[in-house]
Amino acid sequence: MAERISHLGTETAFAVSAEAAAWKGLGNTVYPFHLGDMDLPTPENVVEAAFSAVRAGKTGYCPNAGIPELREALAAEIAATRGVACGPANVAVQPGGKPVIGKFLLALMDPGDEVLYPNPGFPIYESQIEFLGGVAKPYGFVPGRDDFLLDFEAVEAAVTPRTKLLIYNNLHNPTGAESSDEEIEALADLCLRHDLRVLSDEAYWDVRYSGRSRSIAALPGMAERTVILYTFSKKYAMTGWRLGAAIGPEDVIAHIATLNVNQESCTSHFTQWAGVEALTGDQSGAREIVRTLEERRNVAVDLLNDIPGVSCYRPEATFYLYPDVTELMDRKGLAGYEDLRRTVLEQTGVSFCTRQHFGRALPGEQRRYVRIAYSGISTALIREGLGRLKEWAQ
Amino acid sequence: MAERISHLGTETAFAVSAEAAAWKGLGNTVYPFHLGDMDLPTPENVVEAAFSAVRAGKTGYCPNAGIPELREALAAEIAATRGVACGPANVAVQPGGKPVIGKFLLALMDPGDEVLYPNPGFPIYESQIEFLGGVAKPYGFVPGRDDFLLDFEAVEAAVTPRTKLLIYNNLHNPTGAESSDEEIEALADLCLRHDLRVLSDEAYWDVRYSGRSRSIAALPGMAERTVILYTFSKKYAMTGWRLGAAIGPEDVIAHIATLNVNQESCTSHFTQWAGVEALTGDQSGAREIVRTLEERRNVAVDLLNDIPGVSCYRPEATFYLYPDVTELMDRKGLAGYEDLRRTVLEQTGVSFCTRQHFGRALPGEQRRYVRIAYSGISTALIREGLGRLKEWAQ
Repeated sequence: MAERISHLGTETAFAVSAEAAAWKGLGNTVYPFHLGDMDLPTPENVVEAAFSAVRAGKTGYCPNAGIPELREALAAEIAATRGVACGPANVAVQPGGKPVIGKFLLALMDPGDEVLYPNPGFPIYESQIEFLGGVAKPYGFVPGRDDFLLDFEAVEAAVTPRTKLLIYNNLHNPTGAESSDEEIEALADLCLRHDLRVLSDEAYWDVRYSGRSRSIAALPGMAERTVILYTFSKKYAMTGWRLGAAIGPEDVIAHIATLNVNQESCTSHFTQWAGVEALTGDQSGAREIVRTLEERRNVAVDLLNDIPGVSCYRPEATFYLYPDVTELMDRKGLAGYEDLRRTVLEQTGVSFCTRQHFGRALPGEQRRYVRIAYSGISTALIREGLGRLKEWAQ
Repeated sequence: MAERISHLGTETAFAVSAEAAAWKGLGNTVYPFHLGDMDLPTPENVVEAAFSAVRAGKTGYCPNAGIPELREALAAEIAATRGVACGPANVAVQPGGKPVIGKFLLALMDPGDEVLYPNPGFPIYESQIEFLGGVAKPYGFVPGRDDFLLDFEAVEAAVTPRTKLLIYNNLHNPTGAESSDEEIEALADLCLRHDLRVLSDEAYWDVRYSGRSRSIAALPGMAERTVILYTFSKKYAMTGWRLGAAIGPEDVIAHIATLNVNQESCTSHFTQWAGVEALTGDQSGAREIVRTLEERRNVAVDLLNDIPGVSCYRPEATFYLYPDVTELMDRKGLAGYEDLRRTVLEQTGVSFCTRQHFGRALPGEQRRYVRIAYSGISTALIREGLGRLKEWAQ
């Protein structure tokens, strides 16, 4: 085996899924709060567009960077929603949002370069930075009044002359955190001062219940240095279709398109036509998905805050909650995250990931958190599951 | 930009496609012999299986290594057709055959390791070896009585103590070459003597008109050291669906599955159900595809050999022909491949790739070749196009 493969990380959350499935297989009820997957159907007009494309023979290869119609539609979407000038040459279609992470790093990071990334955060950032020979420099979050705040001093302190890139996930997995205008402006200012390029992971842009999403790419001087990770997965309940895009400066996108040639030729041809319909067709399906998720969020936040020893913000975006369970763990005499997770699964059927599935703990971290995902569980089961959790906690 | 991205290669054949499209756009007739794509529809039962899977809600994430049903079906297929013991743990589903190349190298090649690969050959081998820090060591082919022979002395001479891997593409793109029993046995013996791991690119395994395909993995001691590149693209006319698999030793496949986690999460969920139907359902569609291709081959080989200055083998597999055009170029006073290609396109509409789209010429290469692909052009247009080529040649 190659030496380098020993440095490859993974998503340890998959082990949680496997354990939940095994527990269910033994005849137990499981309440799946561990999934970032969705239990909602893809909108009908999007499905029909895919079928029509297959019938029309869109089953052969297509251009490596994507069909022109989808690149156009994505450019128009980004221009309209992010307020960034954008044309088809700024877009490289991908088989999902995730491929953008590795391709961004391959295009812009050399071995030894330092990359700032959120921790807790999506674990593939750290895995890919380290696997591809970079130096992963984590930054964390601190609790604010009604949201988590980016630990800005830690970000600033982590910058060195070798720092080249920043990975930024506004509307954040796992915390649900969202930057204030001041925070996003300070971050852009830092990137400009230190000449950092940015991967802006905007996977949850459209999963929003009030307010308005903002992209760091829209700030002055930032479009030239930012690659947006776009995905169809969440807005259109298309996680299993694998459709996304890298959207950024033309020169970076040209290299990413050449990585497409090398890695997978192109993204599924007819699926791209489904993407065109998703962006340009009737949006009632997408709206219905957000309405369903909002109802789930409301129920879940209220019930979590009703559990002794648990406190939880109410994010206006993403489908994640990140409750503080420090007191609950103390009261129950549970020292470790895995103790908590396994005990709760076995005694209540409630399955979730914990802080440790989203990166190694940072120095000075005192509070303990779990991640509650409500994208793959109905409101009725949220009530039932969190009710059992409350009983257990009391 | 990262320094490393400057080492990334590409498929220069895409430039030929773009030029052919531009020529056609000017109102000219184009005969597309440059495509490795197919103009045939995916079999109806496979299409219906995909649609049913979407209707059944197979639109969420699925396991990183593939759905169990497809891994089982692929393992059974490999066991039955290659004669290799194979279970689901030997299979990692991929979004196409191409991803297997990079993932094989990431799992088994460290920077500085030497990799033997065919040249002429699929250009992504060389591109990925060099991009990922390996040393690409080409081996060529020599004309035999009725087929190209692997230049076995060159292979043997290229082995050094740093040689770790061999990429082998029996049923070869672009030559259509196929190893004799003696050749494949000598190659396996060499791998065992020098402890080489093998990527066996079997993309054209089922595109066969007579005889029987053989896998190097079936030879004694080879299954433990061979990863098979499997694809649904050719047999089932599914190039644009993006569905394939890496099939090999469990430890290598486990690492490749972790690369799946990092690079794309999983392959399109419902597409995998189409793959299950393709492998286990009615095979009449696949048979019809091969019948159509065989008719095209017969017509194309006969017409090519009827052109003065052109001579062409008659491969029993693949959908490529690799005619020797040395005399034609001499007679026409065309010194370079691009002169030939552009002149023929503009004067006849016949579009093809040449030897130089499949790697840098090796020392001592005297004869000149072009690649004629007949997967994306009807028999009628083959007749018309090669008829024009003959007129031009005379």
